[in-house]
Amino acid sequence: MKVAFTSDNIAGASESVWQAMMEASQGDAMPYGSDEYTTQVTRMLSELFECEVDVFMVSTGTAANVLSISAMTPVWGSVLCHKESHLLCDESTAPEFYTGGARFVGIGGADAKMDPALLERVINQKVGDVHSCQPSAVSISQVTEVGSVYSLEEIHAVTGVAKAAGLPVHMDGARFANALLALGCTPAQMTWKAGVDIVSFGATKNGTMSAEAIVVFNKALAKDLAFRRKRGGHLLSKMRLLSSQMIAYLTDELWRTNAEQANAMMALMQAGLQTVPGITINTPAQANMLFCTLPEGMADYLLAEGFAFYTGRWEKGVVRLVTSFRTPKEGVEAFVESARQFAQQQGL
Amino acid sequence: MKVAFTSDNIAGASESVWQAMMEASQGDAMPYGSDEYTTQVTRMLSELFECEVDVFMVSTGTAANVLSISAMTPVWGSVLCHKESHLLCDESTAPEFYTGGARFVGIGGADAKMDPALLERVINQKVGDVHSCQPSAVSISQVTEVGSVYSLEEIHAVTGVAKAAGLPVHMDGARFANALLALGCTPAQMTWKAGVDIVSFGATKNGTMSAEAIVVFNKALAKDLAFRRKRGGHLLSKMRLLSSQMIAYLTDELWRTNAEQANAMMALMQAGLQTVPGITINTPAQANMLFCTLPEGMADYLLAEGFAFYTGRWEKGVVRLVTSFRTPKEGVEAFVESARQFAQQQGL
Amino acid sequence: MKVAFTSDNIAGASESVWQAMMEASQGDAMPYGSDEYTTQVTRMLSELFECEVDVFMVSTGTAANVLSISAMTPVWGSVLCHKESHLLCDESTAPEFYTGGARFVGIGGADAKMDPALLERVINQKVGDVHSCQPSAVSISQVTEVGSVYSLEEIHAVTGVAKAAGLPVHMDGARFANALLALGCTPAQMTWKAGVDIVSFGATKNGTMSAEAIVVFNKALAKDLAFRRKRGGHLLSKMRLLSSQMIAYLTDELWRTNAEQANAMMALMQAGLQTVPGITINTPAQANMLFCTLPEGMADYLLAEGFAFYTGRWEKGVVRLVTSFRTPKEGVEAFVESARQFAQQQGL
Amino acid sequence: MKVAFTSDNIAGASESVWQAMMEASQGDAMPYGSDEYTTQVTRMLSELFECEVDVFMVSTGTAANVLSISAMTPVWGSVLCHKESHLLCDESTAPEFYTGGARFVGIGGADAKMDPALLERVINQKVGDVHSCQPSAVSISQVTEVGSVYSLEEIHAVTGVAKAAGLPVHMDGARFANALLALGCTPAQMTWKAGVDIVSFGATKNGTMSAEAIVVFNKALAKDLAFRRKRGGHLLSKMRLLSSQMIAYLTDELWRTNAEQANAMMALMQAGLQTVPGITINTPAQANMLFCTLPEGMADYLLAEGFAFYTGRWEKGVVRLVTSFRTPKEGVEAFVESARQFAQQQGL
Repeated sequence: MKVAFTSDNIAGASESVWQAMMEASQGDAMPYGSDEYTTQVTRMLSELFECEVDVFMVSTGTAANVLSISAMTPVWGSVLCHKESHLLCDESTAPEFYTGGARFVGIGGADAKMDPALLERVINQKVGDVHSCQPSAVSISQVTEVGSVYSLEEIHAVTGVAKAAGLPVHMDGARFANALLALGCTPAQMTWKAGVDIVSFGATKNGTMSAEAIVVFNKALAKDLAFRRKRGGHLLSKMRLLSSQMIAYLTDELWRTNAEQANAMMALMQAGLQTVPGITINTPAQANMLFCTLPEGMADYLLAEGFAFYTGRWEKGVVRLVTSFRTPKEGVEAFVESARQFAQQQGL
Repeated sequence: MKVAFTSDNIAGASESVWQAMMEASQGDAMPYGSDEYTTQVTRMLSELFECEVDVFMVSTGTAANVLSISAMTPVWGSVLCHKESHLLCDESTAPEFYTGGARFVGIGGADAKMDPALLERVINQKVGDVHSCQPSAVSISQVTEVGSVYSLEEIHAVTGVAKAAGLPVHMDGARFANALLALGCTPAQMTWKAGVDIVSFGATKNGTMSAEAIVVFNKALAKDLAFRRKRGGHLLSKMRLLSSQMIAYLTDELWRTNAEQANAMMALMQAGLQTVPGITINTPAQANMLFCTLPEGMADYLLAEGFAFYTGRWEKGVVRLVTSFRTPKEGVEAFVESARQFAQQQGL
Repeated sequence: MKVAFTSDNIAGASESVWQAMMEASQGDAMPYGSDEYTTQVTRMLSELFECEVDVFMVSTGTAANVLSISAMTPVWGSVLCHKESHLLCDESTAPEFYTGGARFVGIGGADAKMDPALLERVINQKVGDVHSCQPSAVSISQVTEVGSVYSLEEIHAVTGVAKAAGLPVHMDGARFANALLALGCTPAQMTWKAGVDIVSFGATKNGTMSAEAIVVFNKALAKDLAFRRKRGGHLLSKMRLLSSQMIAYLTDELWRTNAEQANAMMALMQAGLQTVPGITINTPAQANMLFCTLPEGMADYLLAEGFAFYTGRWEKGVVRLVTSFRTPKEGVEAFVESARQFAQQQGL
Repeated sequence: MKVAFTSDNIAGASESVWQAMMEASQGDAMPYGSDEYTTQVTRMLSELFECEVDVFMVSTGTAANVLSISAMTPVWGSVLCHKESHLLCDESTAPEFYTGGARFVGIGGADAKMDPALLERVINQKVGDVHSCQPSAVSISQVTEVGSVYSLEEIHAVTGVAKAAGLPVHMDGARFANALLALGCTPAQMTWKAGVDIVSFGATKNGTMSAEAIVVFNKALAKDLAFRRKRGGHLLSKMRLLSSQMIAYLTDELWRTNAEQANAMMALMQAGLQTVPGITINTPAQANMLFCTLPEGMADYLLAEGFAFYTGRWEKGVVRLVTSFRTPKEGVEAFVESARQFAQQQGL
């Protein structure tokens, strides 16, 4: 059984999601979010986060991220994020575009998590110096770009530094549910109770086709976002297409079921690969993504066997494996077994 | 039977469209447009337009318009469009945002169609003057914002002026199919054969939930658009959600069937209202939208009867009526009948 | 005696100004405005305006205008100015550039002064409508682009409408001194006491070579401006070059002496031209600029005589005449005399 | 004798420069660069560079740099410069602002000179990947931010990599003359003959008050710059103020005389400090700037003695010393002597 571990964005949608889209495609509804579906999304997310939130549905994670941050920073500010973050490395110049030309500065830290001490150092450089970009916002990714997950303590450490300097904090939650399950905490604990002002609450990678919610805890930022979403061309006329997916995603905790499957499959994968001679786990997977280094020839062997994954983008031998809500147990087992066979053939 | 004539964006999707979305939600597919659906869309649109086109799917008409134009103008240019156009009046500052701060200049002309003579005059003002915005692109709407349709001759007149000055031309085709049927010509005739470089080929208002194609005839503009779409946050990871809708829309000429229904219902509506005493047709409807002026009290009466439409946004008594692919004949008849009853009651 | 009435920006500098530049060019001074000259400018302008102001020196009027406004408007806002204003007609796309893509909307009104009733109508359109640009700031020009001057009552009428809607007000004072003398009031009366938040206090057209002060009455806007000036590339390292000119301009009321001369010469010019048959005064000059319509052939005659002025840019026969602090009485008299000769020759 | 080594921007102007400004302040001249002075500047720079150049005078080095680069890069591109460059570290977000939100990427390399191998690696990453910023221009500084100077071979190495990838090259020549003398080559050899497309030809740090010329060798970029300068608010009406300074700077090789003095003084300074026990030269000064590390207490001692220089901005003990055309020999000798005294007192 051959399976693709390329990304969680290659999987389609859960059944209840496409059924919701189908139903939402019937009949009339007022446009631009003035529909019942969208109202319900806000209600459901307010419940999920245990506080009254403002919600802006958009169709991509990039839009959710850069719109959120654009409401946080003056044009002459600098936004601090991890130097390996998706925001900095995989969203073209969307960050500069949406912020009107703010600077995005990469901060170091192990496992793609921002080091609070490094963050503090950068924040305290050249404060008020008109020649320098002035730190104005912080963005963290949960799950990170290498598959690690910030603990609650680690989030607090980062937001603590930010808040001490008066900077708002954004969380890129493209894999929010996967991180949440890894921590075993509540959505509120991982966000506003930990000092996060806005979260990009992603659903697209975990069972919907296209549904990202900008969830705003800091109400002062909401008015600006309404206008910014429109000028970004991200206000869908038939918003119910997005909102219906999010409703299905939030109903009966589909988000949890899906993320549990994805995370469990990765745990199985990791446990299996750890027992294969010659494979190095680069960053222990805490959610549904793993970076590991394969012995020479193994990647090609596995690709030839029909498995799919990204390789050749990083240091020699490094591959990225991502599981999703649709990843079957047999597929993971087959992958591990194939890796083991290669190792045996090579006498590793 | 009570029907809403608020807008064609309140209608859901045709059955084949939501079935296509449903099917596209199954299984795996490569992300960001590297999927079979998206490839097929380009093939189908190339056939429809009888030439090899580049296609960029996006989820909103605003995104399609402003991305298209952003590839056409330097930041110090001015984009000439009708002063009542959607681009200028209903898309917030998206035009300025996406073009990096070009100027958008409204040109006059009857029935919301640009007057070629006025256009020419503006284009020839202060040419090369560094203090003035330099005309750099032209954008026309087909159907226009008041429901009229440019004839092929009228399109040629505008593009002729533009081309003589070396300016590229964009067409906002949010209601492309409705206009095409009104003219009874081919898509090629209404676009590249008439001097159009890029068209925003809209499907959302005519039977899909969210599917707009930027169709590029001038290949020099395509590379830029690929990057601009990404930095605008408009590159969907599961692009097949949009592409599958467009495939259904192009299959078996659904676009034609739907637009025929919408246009026919408007023709019926207009023919009916013309016979009701006291009603003035402001701009003869050529497609599926009508602006007319109702006698005092009639709008309130019809709203109270349960019909829905926009009023109160324009001069006193003016209402906008829009039909869609889902508008039932009985609904139109009931509306006209109600209007007639009111006129009779009032002794008009 | 042949004189140029092309513009007040063709005149060089007053003697005390170039002497001040010469002296400021000696010795060392801290850069970027941390010099004694710049400190003194703030002190002198605070005195002149009878309140504590923040000052940002820049080298052009365009920079002063667009930087000022950029601190006032969100990117999704619209800035309301007169449709004939310099801001809208003569500064390329600097307004859109500096505001990050706000919309600039031209308001009508006689003599290039904004009509408060029209302003109010535009401000109250589509309030809060996410599809529309939201009015966010107002900018008036004093002197206007056609040479008229707002009375204090007229300023109050405009700022009253703005303030009622919560909008900040900018004044383009490229010819501030000329307007002030025309009104015979204090700088405070014409600005902050009349509801103006920031003024572009121009000196370049009235005796300096390059010295424009952004004078901020509303202190909340000052921090942003410090950073915006730098990112606009408008923070001179040897700021004393600008500040020294402004000091000379403010010393012994040079601004007044110079503007008095310019205004007096225009009054003489206007009085003379009014007595020449065939000439129509288009807008009565209140300061140092006049638009009038000459009879056929007269403009060419005067140009051939060696006088210089702009013509051919407006309706047939319209010329613009501008006097400056250096305009000699004999030059004005000679001009009027030449016009009279032409009229006599033509039997007008 | 106490002297300031803070920066070369603290010095005023050479006598012939302020005399030129004084003379240029007399009489009338056409505005916006349509004056004789500005025409002459272009002629003189064409001679200096031995080819026909386009010239755009501006008043700051930041404006010269970011305008130049804005004409070279699409908004979705990345501009590669040294990670310690002035462009990246000292010009706020002007780079992002002027380019409409391109990304600026810092490249490593010893002595603040870009390492061609590192540059090549970055240029060849993710070519054509729509998610990544696409390298689109290269900018080098000559003199660098730490006082080193690229040899002609080193410039060729960088531009060779850039040209191979089709990227234009900008040179930040804020200290152009100082570098030129260090190399002993011609202006042509250091620029267009070495693959540079545009140079920011700085004069402000070497004897003028405010005069920077954007010198364009690649004529295709000139039209865009004319409009971009205006929209940046950098087109002075009385342009002759800048042009007259540049004429004086180019007359009788004032640029050479001034830079020779500055460089000679730094050579004297460096030779002296090298003999003082406890002082480490960090980067050998090739022009007029030196970074060195002083033993504990020495910086405070020298400041207390009345010398001025920047310290406390870098690693412990590091100071920056800059000489200018006005730096007196006695001042340098006194500084070295004071340093030596301190070393002796401390028994170093």
